[in-house]
Amino acid sequence: MIDQPAPSDNTTITLPPNDYGEAFPASQKVYVDGPHGIRVPFREIVLSGGEPPLRVYDTSGPLGHDVREGLPALRTPWIISRGDTEEVIKRPVPVAGDAPEMPAGLYRGARVAKAGQRVTQMAYARRGEITPEMEFVALREGMPAEFVRSEVARGRAIIPANINHPEVEPQIIGRGFKVKINANIGNSAVRSVIEDEVEKLRWSTLWGADTVMDLSTGKHIHQTREWILRNSPVPIGTVPIYQALEKVGGVPEDLTWEVYRDTLLEQCEQGVDYFTVHAGVLLRYVPLTANRMTGIVSRGGSIIAKWCLAHHKESFLYTHFREICEIMAAYDVSFSLGDGLRPGSIADANDDAQFAELMTQGELTKIAWEYDVQTMCEGPGHVPMHKIKENMDNQLAWCHEAPFYTLGPLTTDIAPGYDHITSAIGAAQIGWYGTAMLCYVTPKEHLGLPDRDDVKAGVITYRIAAHAADLAKGHPRAQEWDDALSKARFEFRWRDQFALALDPVTALKYHDQTLPADGAKVAHFCSMCGPKFCSMELTQQLRQQAMSAEVETLSAQVADGLRAKAAEFREAGAELYQPVAGD
Amino acid sequence: MIDQPAPSDNTTITLPPNDYGEAFPASQKVYVDGPHGIRVPFREIVLSGGEPPLRVYDTSGPLGHDVREGLPALRTPWIISRGDTEEVIKRPVPVAGDAPEMPAGLYRGARVAKAGQRVTQMAYARRGEITPEMEFVALREGMPAEFVRSEVARGRAIIPANINHPEVEPQIIGRGFKVKINANIGNSAVRSVIEDEVEKLRWSTLWGADTVMDLSTGKHIHQTREWILRNSPVPIGTVPIYQALEKVGGVPEDLTWEVYRDTLLEQCEQGVDYFTVHAGVLLRYVPLTANRMTGIVSRGGSIIAKWCLAHHKESFLYTHFREICEIMAAYDVSFSLGDGLRPGSIADANDDAQFAELMTQGELTKIAWEYDVQTMCEGPGHVPMHKIKENMDNQLAWCHEAPFYTLGPLTTDIAPGYDHITSAIGAAQIGWYGTAMLCYVTPKEHLGLPDRDDVKAGVITYRIAAHAADLAKGHPRAQEWDDALSKARFEFRWRDQFALALDPVTALKYHDQTLPADGAKVAHFCSMCGPKFCSMELTQQLRQQAMSAEVETLSAQVADGLRAKAAEFREAGAELYQPVAGD
Repeated sequence: MIDQPAPSDNTTITLPPNDYGEAFPASQKVYVDGPHGIRVPFREIVLSGGEPPLRVYDTSGPLGHDVREGLPALRTPWIISRGDTEEVIKRPVPVAGDAPEMPAGLYRGARVAKAGQRVTQMAYARRGEITPEMEFVALREGMPAEFVRSEVARGRAIIPANINHPEVEPQIIGRGFKVKINANIGNSAVRSVIEDEVEKLRWSTLWGADTVMDLSTGKHIHQTREWILRNSPVPIGTVPIYQALEKVGGVPEDLTWEVYRDTLLEQCEQGVDYFTVHAGVLLRYVPLTANRMTGIVSRGGSIIAKWCLAHHKESFLYTHFREICEIMAAYDVSFSLGDGLRPGSIADANDDAQFAELMTQGELTKIAWEYDVQTMCEGPGHVPMHKIKENMDNQLAWCHEAPFYTLGPLTTDIAPGYDHITSAIGAAQIGWYGTAMLCYVTPKEHLGLPDRDDVKAGVITYRIAAHAADLAKGHPRAQEWDDALSKARFEFRWRDQFALALDPVTALKYHDQTLPADGAKVAHFCSMCGPKFCSMELTQQLRQQAMSAEVETLSAQVADGLRAKAAEFREAGAELYQPVAGD
Repeated sequence: MIDQPAPSDNTTITLPPNDYGEAFPASQKVYVDGPHGIRVPFREIVLSGGEPPLRVYDTSGPLGHDVREGLPALRTPWIISRGDTEEVIKRPVPVAGDAPEMPAGLYRGARVAKAGQRVTQMAYARRGEITPEMEFVALREGMPAEFVRSEVARGRAIIPANINHPEVEPQIIGRGFKVKINANIGNSAVRSVIEDEVEKLRWSTLWGADTVMDLSTGKHIHQTREWILRNSPVPIGTVPIYQALEKVGGVPEDLTWEVYRDTLLEQCEQGVDYFTVHAGVLLRYVPLTANRMTGIVSRGGSIIAKWCLAHHKESFLYTHFREICEIMAAYDVSFSLGDGLRPGSIADANDDAQFAELMTQGELTKIAWEYDVQTMCEGPGHVPMHKIKENMDNQLAWCHEAPFYTLGPLTTDIAPGYDHITSAIGAAQIGWYGTAMLCYVTPKEHLGLPDRDDVKAGVITYRIAAHAADLAKGHPRAQEWDDALSKARFEFRWRDQFALALDPVTALKYHDQTLPADGAKVAHFCSMCGPKFCSMELTQQLRQQAMSAEVETLSAQVADGLRAKAAEFREAGAELYQPVAGD
């Protein structure tokens, strides 16, 4: 994905310190100025050979800040100037005796909508207002601000941006825009170190995570989240039921609406940008999972299912859904309507339980929109390739084109240890069909907690899937990046080829394992074929030879003939052959 | 892909030594006896909890042999008993002074068809004969032998098996069968060690390469190939023009039909199973590449293009194509009709040059079939997802359903260092559409020569793509493997889950990075969620609760309602929504 906003004299340049410079040695972070004092970040890749620099989407956030101070509060003036919110005293949060001390520099106040106000981007968009957040994403995506507004108003895109997360650099999630990716982080009862999670956050966004979900279920959930939010330049999502369950000692049956509501409010005040809410798990859907290969595999889904059965009624998420909407509208928290009954295996894909919940997700979407709450819907999971499109078709039809946000899907179950790859195959495909955000899967999926290398592998793999989807769905600016890299490759600009790679240092390292000498970086051949066999070198020689007129004429006839044949084939209509397997 | 041939009392078991046991600690190699003394290898995964063992396709070949002696000549009795071949004295091959000594144990004689005989599997199939090779692949694939014969006769599948490669355990390549994968190995002028290549061969087949191409272009090409063939249980492919070019000092213009023909004969006598022949690169197609982003990227393609232009006529591959067919029919070498003009970048995908050559590949296929020569066609390359299907549709229509054999395709150019993943996305998709064999791409593609780890990464990634394709195209036995693994996962049979993984040791290692204790291998939770949050554990508890009659009734109504809705949607026909990007 390329973004080259003009004019360039609106640009200020900062030098890249720390990880940024190590990860992208030939890049610099630049800011493009827009209306209302907006400054939109890009990563500018500096090229040689007279090629113009390439500017690409950049999620790494402001550089050089102390994590104990947090990021600058970019959005605060925008939020305050709207005049529809007021400061509140944050509700007290019990802190465990062994909780790590919270640095004073991370303290922020909280705001809430004034009585009767809905302070969501959807509310503004529906009123015809183009907010600074919309201007920001418009410049970032290279799309008209009015298009951004209309997509948000229509519910086809969301800008998750809690008024209490002023540090966020706004992102838009919708199928008319660049496909986004989410990285999951979070501690668990098995392993829990706050610093690790903040480091994973910054590491994920460095490599290109567009949003991050904090799925902590272990100790010090509130404190972990505070560190993450204050240091996050991207929207943060959570699954509030996890924390609510901690509050009732881990017994699902003991969950109550009051505990859940208080948890929502606590997280709204902290600044969480979107909540996964499994309100579509209905009592009557639970028996549909009984004969599955892998039952219910969503943590949230199984908690709610257990609650429903124990109390023999619908969950408080469903019965109090309108109150949840009112709360979220007062902070501009977006819904990510959870898919608690998603399939956990190829065998369970596209079954009744899954699709019943999806229909309810669609009904809930309409209710959320009544309250101007921005909404996306979560999707599977494990789905073989031939069943993926049905997921997208149903979601678009039943959920009224609200953005779809899928986990993979994994296209086979047989490769634990490589599920970033099994799922990238499905993710690229469903992204092409219209999914707006892809939740990454790391190599550790099903096996353990991702470490730093796993997070990077997951993010890079999903950047690939998302970009492949952008190319396939015809995003107008997607191909410029591919073209820049291929041109560099063809012209033997080796250092430019590395600089343009999603992961420049790895590309360079792999090259140097065979041809380490500096001279090889300007060689007109590569280590794969050696000097005599380089086909690109041969092609360049070919170009310098003049073709005879006769060959040129024959060649033109071939091109004409092909186009005639293609037209004829299209007119014939039918696909002539079908795979024989499974006949 | 699962294969569980019955009856089990036909099975003999050998103990797994060496790499095999290290790679697959819970597996044993078993042989299933078929007609004509056939013994077909499988890898049997031993499971716990009363589960039956799972038998999977196994390309690792006979175990425990000395590479200086080569593998047993499995097929020799089959070949001799047909009575249509005779021994010949191998033609002398000049050996460079610094060539490594060839072990005496690797010496084999050579055979050729008797005058007037065509000794190809296609010739036999067309005569209605079911050969031992066909019986072998039938048992291996779990398909009727008559179906194998008819697909080979029809040209929709090939069994590459040179009469001088008796060590091969026959494989079938066709879209009615399991999708196959190829691994490329071979030295280059930059790096050249024979032992490395033999090691890569055995390593590739251990992890599941169905065929291997020896793409050597450096020193001692003949000797390297001899070592590879004598130790290869899988079909070996080559690109003979590489060796021919070495013989004329690396100057394409100096290539002649005579040098090329002698090279073919030399390789036929050695036992190469399929030849990539770029006979579809015609003089008039070359100018169609002039304005490409990346010109001609196939080594073979650029050599032939240069020759055509220098001599201003069609190549000897094209003008002598019928003689090539006659030679190949005398040894049963299969064609892999090269795609010398394949696109090397997203920008060049599906252009006139590429499709012009594909049409010529189709014409050549028909000619090859006149000589009973088994034939497949090579395909791209770099293709964005939305342009992949057109490749498959055109190939089926223009090449008369001959098997398609594609390199990836890579679905984006921007991730050098990760092109096993960019290409697995495209490979899985085109495999689903009907491609019979996928040529692997390693992480080093575009950057350097793959080492041992890269080869493994490439093979495992392509096993994933091929299996995902088998699931999607509805191969009748594909899903059994997924089901076995998911069942083990759901039942917390951790060791079975590792054993069933494509790469068991990596799966175990990842698990142990978070929960190393042996007790965790029987725990009813995993390291991702910890004990309280394990959704699978919750589901198992759910199953033990009886549902009320009322809930059961409601649930049945939901299922009925969903099916009615789905039927209604199908009848409505049209897809309601289209992605907005690119509108």
